[in-house]
Amino acid sequence: MRIPLDRQSQQPLYKQIEGYFRECILAGSLAPETRLPATRQLARDLGVNRITVETAYSALEADGLVYSRVGSGTYALAPLPGQQPSREQPGAPWPLWQEELLASGGLEEVVSAEEMLLAAGHPAPVSFAGGSGDARLFPSEDFRKVIQAVMRRDGSEALDYGDAKGYQPLRATIAGVLTSQGLMAGAEQILITGGSQQALALVVQLLLKAGDTILVENPTYSGALSLFRALGLRIVGVPIDQHGMCVEELEALLQVHHPRLIYTMPTFQNPTGACLSLARRQQLLALAERYNLAVLEDDYVGDLRYEGRSLPPLKALDSRGLVIYISTYSKMFMPGLRVGFIAAEGPVCERLVSFKRLNDLATSNLMQRAVEAYVSVGRYQNHLRRCVHVYRRRREAVLQALNRCMPAGVRFHPPLGGLFIWLQLPPGVDARALLPLACQAGVAFAPGEDFFAEGREKNHLRLNFAAHPPEVIAEGIARLAEVVRRAI
Amino acid sequence: MRIPLDRQSQQPLYKQIEGYFRECILAGSLAPETRLPATRQLARDLGVNRITVETAYSALEADGLVYSRVGSGTYALAPLPGQQPSREQPGAPWPLWQEELLASGGLEEVVSAEEMLLAAGHPAPVSFAGGSGDARLFPSEDFRKVIQAVMRRDGSEALDYGDAKGYQPLRATIAGVLTSQGLMAGAEQILITGGSQQALALVVQLLLKAGDTILVENPTYSGALSLFRALGLRIVGVPIDQHGMCVEELEALLQVHHPRLIYTMPTFQNPTGACLSLARRQQLLALAERYNLAVLEDDYVGDLRYEGRSLPPLKALDSRGLVIYISTYSKMFMPGLRVGFIAAEGPVCERLVSFKRLNDLATSNLMQRAVEAYVSVGRYQNHLRRCVHVYRRRREAVLQALNRCMPAGVRFHPPLGGLFIWLQLPPGVDARALLPLACQAGVAFAPGEDFFAEGREKNHLRLNFAAHPPEVIAEGIARLAEVVRRAI
Repeated sequence: MRIPLDRQSQQPLYKQIEGYFRECILAGSLAPETRLPATRQLARDLGVNRITVETAYSALEADGLVYSRVGSGTYALAPLPGQQPSREQPGAPWPLWQEELLASGGLEEVVSAEEMLLAAGHPAPVSFAGGSGDARLFPSEDFRKVIQAVMRRDGSEALDYGDAKGYQPLRATIAGVLTSQGLMAGAEQILITGGSQQALALVVQLLLKAGDTILVENPTYSGALSLFRALGLRIVGVPIDQHGMCVEELEALLQVHHPRLIYTMPTFQNPTGACLSLARRQQLLALAERYNLAVLEDDYVGDLRYEGRSLPPLKALDSRGLVIYISTYSKMFMPGLRVGFIAAEGPVCERLVSFKRLNDLATSNLMQRAVEAYVSVGRYQNHLRRCVHVYRRRREAVLQALNRCMPAGVRFHPPLGGLFIWLQLPPGVDARALLPLACQAGVAFAPGEDFFAEGREKNHLRLNFAAHPPEVIAEGIARLAEVVRRAI
Repeated sequence: MRIPLDRQSQQPLYKQIEGYFRECILAGSLAPETRLPATRQLARDLGVNRITVETAYSALEADGLVYSRVGSGTYALAPLPGQQPSREQPGAPWPLWQEELLASGGLEEVVSAEEMLLAAGHPAPVSFAGGSGDARLFPSEDFRKVIQAVMRRDGSEALDYGDAKGYQPLRATIAGVLTSQGLMAGAEQILITGGSQQALALVVQLLLKAGDTILVENPTYSGALSLFRALGLRIVGVPIDQHGMCVEELEALLQVHHPRLIYTMPTFQNPTGACLSLARRQQLLALAERYNLAVLEDDYVGDLRYEGRSLPPLKALDSRGLVIYISTYSKMFMPGLRVGFIAAEGPVCERLVSFKRLNDLATSNLMQRAVEAYVSVGRYQNHLRRCVHVYRRRREAVLQALNRCMPAGVRFHPPLGGLFIWLQLPPGVDARALLPLACQAGVAFAPGEDFFAEGREKNHLRLNFAAHPPEVIAEGIARLAEVVRRAI
C-alpha cells in the first residue's frame, strides 16, 4: 500500500498515516470490515518505522474508526453519524474553473421516469418509458456461445485494437445486409462506432461547431437534442405529421436559417413513430442538394416493420454523397453491446474514421467479432424475425388497450413499426405533471416535452409498447387511462 | 431483397433492377459468387412481374456481370478490368459541404511505421513502433473463462446499458485499488470510459472550446496532440527533462498564455519515459491552484515500475479538486477491451458523466463486468506482476543492446518504468528520413517529430522495448544501430 507522505511537513508521519486512513474510512473509500495492511508490511511499503504505523492505528482505534482482532489484524469500522471527511466540510470551495462549470448551467439532470416509478414502490410497476426492446428477448445464451467460439478461434487477436474502421468482416457483413435492403454499400464505406449515439456525436462534432444551426424534426429523439444543446448548436425544428417531416415547409426554413445539417429519422421516427413518404424522401434529397445541406439519417429500428411495404432509406436514394446513414445493433439486439455504424461515402467518410480514432481509438474488437459471428450465420435474422413477430402482437395489444380504456380526446396514430406510440392528451393537460401520479398508480411513460426542440408542447407522452407482454401492457394502459381520466 | 424503384421514372423497371445489380457488382458490394435472389422471390419482394426480373438478369448476363447455373440460380461474377461503377466515374463532384471538408485540410493521414515495415517485406521484421505491451502476454484464455462466468452469472443484464457512470462493482474495485496506491477515491468519483483516449477526449471537449489554449509537455503523446489539433485548440509546450516537466518554466508560460488546462503524464511520460520528481509535483499543484488551471493527469502505465520507489500520482496530492485523473486497463492488459476510467471530484465529475452519456451512452457493460471479475479476484494483479517481471528484463536487454551497438552521439536515459525509451540522435540526423531505410533493414520505430507540440525536433525516435523478447530486441537494435551509423 502507498500513502502520500510529506517528509518536509511539520505534521509527524504517524499523523499523516492516521489522517489518510481517517479520510478513507469517513469518505467510504475503505469499506467497513476491510482489513488494513499489517503494520510490518505498511512500514516497509512506506519506508517508516513500524512504531509509526502502530501509533497511527492506535489513534484510529481510539477514535472508533478501526478495531483490532488479536492475531488477525486491524479492520475498518463504519463511520458514526456526524463523522465527516474533512474535504467535504462546508466552506472548502472548488477551484474557480469548477465553480464556473456549476455557474454555466447547461447539462440538465432530472430524475428519470423509471427512477420515479421504482421510488413510488408499486408492487407490480409497468414502465413504458424505456428506449429499447425487451431485454428478456435478448439472445444472451446464444451470444455467450458466440463469444466463446470467437475467443477460441481468434485468441489474443480478438483483444487487440484492430482496424481503425472496425473489424473488416463485420463491415463486409453490414455492407451486404444494407445492399440487400436497397442501400448499396461496400465494406469501405462502413465505420463501426460505439452504438448509434457515438455515430451521431461524431458526425455532428465533425461537421458543426458551436453556434452553427442544425435542423431536426420537432419533436425528435431527446438524447440527440441534449447532445446538440451541450455542443452549443442552434436547433431549429421542422414540423412532423403522420407521414413524417413536413418537407413542404423545409425550403422556407433553409432560406431563413442556413443550416449545415439536418438530422432525421425517416422510418418509425422517435418519438412519433411516423414514416416519411416516398415523395417526401425524394423532395428532401432534392432540397439537400440544392441548398448544400448534409443529411444525417438515423435508421435506428428500420427493420422492425409490422405492416405495409418497406420504403428505401434516404441513403438508398442518394447517388451524390448527400446522406450520412447511421444505425445500430443495440435497439433490437443488446444495448450493452455498444456496436453501431456509419455508412457514408466521399471525403466525410475518411474524416469520420480519423475523428473516431481520436475520440476513442476503436470500438471493442471482441464485441465486433462476436456481432459479426452472430449476424453472418443468420442468427441475427432469426432473432429479428422473432422480435418482429412478438412486437407486432404487442403493438396490437397497446392499440386495443388504448382504444378500450383511454377517454375521448386522447389521440394517436397506429405506428407501422418501431418501438413507440405517441399520445396526444387533451389541450391543457401537462404530461410531466401527470408522471408522479402515474408512478403512484404503478405506470411510467416518457413525458413528451423532452422531445421538443422548440415550442415545447406539454400534452404529449411516448409509450414503449415493445418492452412488455400483452397482458402487462393491458394492465399498464388501464392504470394510465385512469390517471388521465382524473386529470381532464 | 429490396431495391429502390422509381415507378414515376421514364426508365423501365427492368432497367432499374439491372442498374442496381450492375452498380453492386462493379462497386464490389456484391462479392463474386454471391447468389442473386431467385427471380420469383425478388419479383414478389419488389411487387413487379417475374418477367421484369428475368429481363434484368438476362441483360446482366449478356454484359458478363452474372452467370446462371441451371437449377441452382444466378451468381455474381468479378467485374472485368475497365468496368467501373458509374458513381465513381470522374467528373461527378461531391456535394459542396464534402468538398469543403477536403479543402479544410486538417486531419493528417500518414503511412504508419508498422505498415511501412510490413510493406518492406523483411523476413523477420522487428517493430519497436507500437504503443502497447506484448500481445503474447495478454491472458486471453483466462479472460475467455471470465467472460463465460460473467455471462452465466448475469445473463441478459450483462448486455443492457447499465449505470451511466459505469458498472458499480467495477467502480468500487477501481476506487479500492487507487486508495491502496495513495489516491483516495470512492466509487462515486469514478467514471468508466472507452479507454483512456475517450477519457482524454471527454475532458478536453467538456472544458475547452476551439481557440482555447492547452499546455502539454513537449514532446508528448502524439494521439493527444492530434486530438487537440482536430479540436482547434492552441497548443503550448512546456520543456521536459530527465525529471519530467520543467515546472520552473511553467509560471512564465501561464502568465503569457492563460491556458485553461494542462495535460501531463507525470509517471513514465510518453515518449520520454521521464518521471516527475516529488518537488515538481507539489510545485505544479501549487501553480495550478494559484492560476486557476485544471490539471489532466494521464497515468497510463503508472503500475509498470522497474526500479526505484513509486511516487504518488498528482491526484493523490490534490485535496482541492484541481486534478482530473485518467487511466486505462488497455496498455497492460488488452487494448481491444476499451475500458479506461476518469477519477475526479466536484462539479466536473457530474458534468463528465452527462457528457459521456451524450457521446456514446455507455461503455460495453459486458466488458466492464468481465474486467471487474478479472481484477477483483486478484488475477489482474498477478498479470501485472508477471508483466513487470518480463518487461524489466526487456528493458535491461534494450539498454544493453543500445550501449553495445549504438554509435557515439546517440543519447538516452534509462527509463524507470513504462514501455518506452527515447533516443536522441546526433544533431542533423532526421529520424523520419531514416525510417524507410530502417524498414528495409527490418526494424521500425516511432519518429520523434510526431510527439512535438512545437519546435519539432527531427533527431529523436521512440522505441517500445516491451513488445519483444530479449533476443529479438538485441537483433532489432543491432539493425537500427547499423542504419544510424550509416546516417551520421
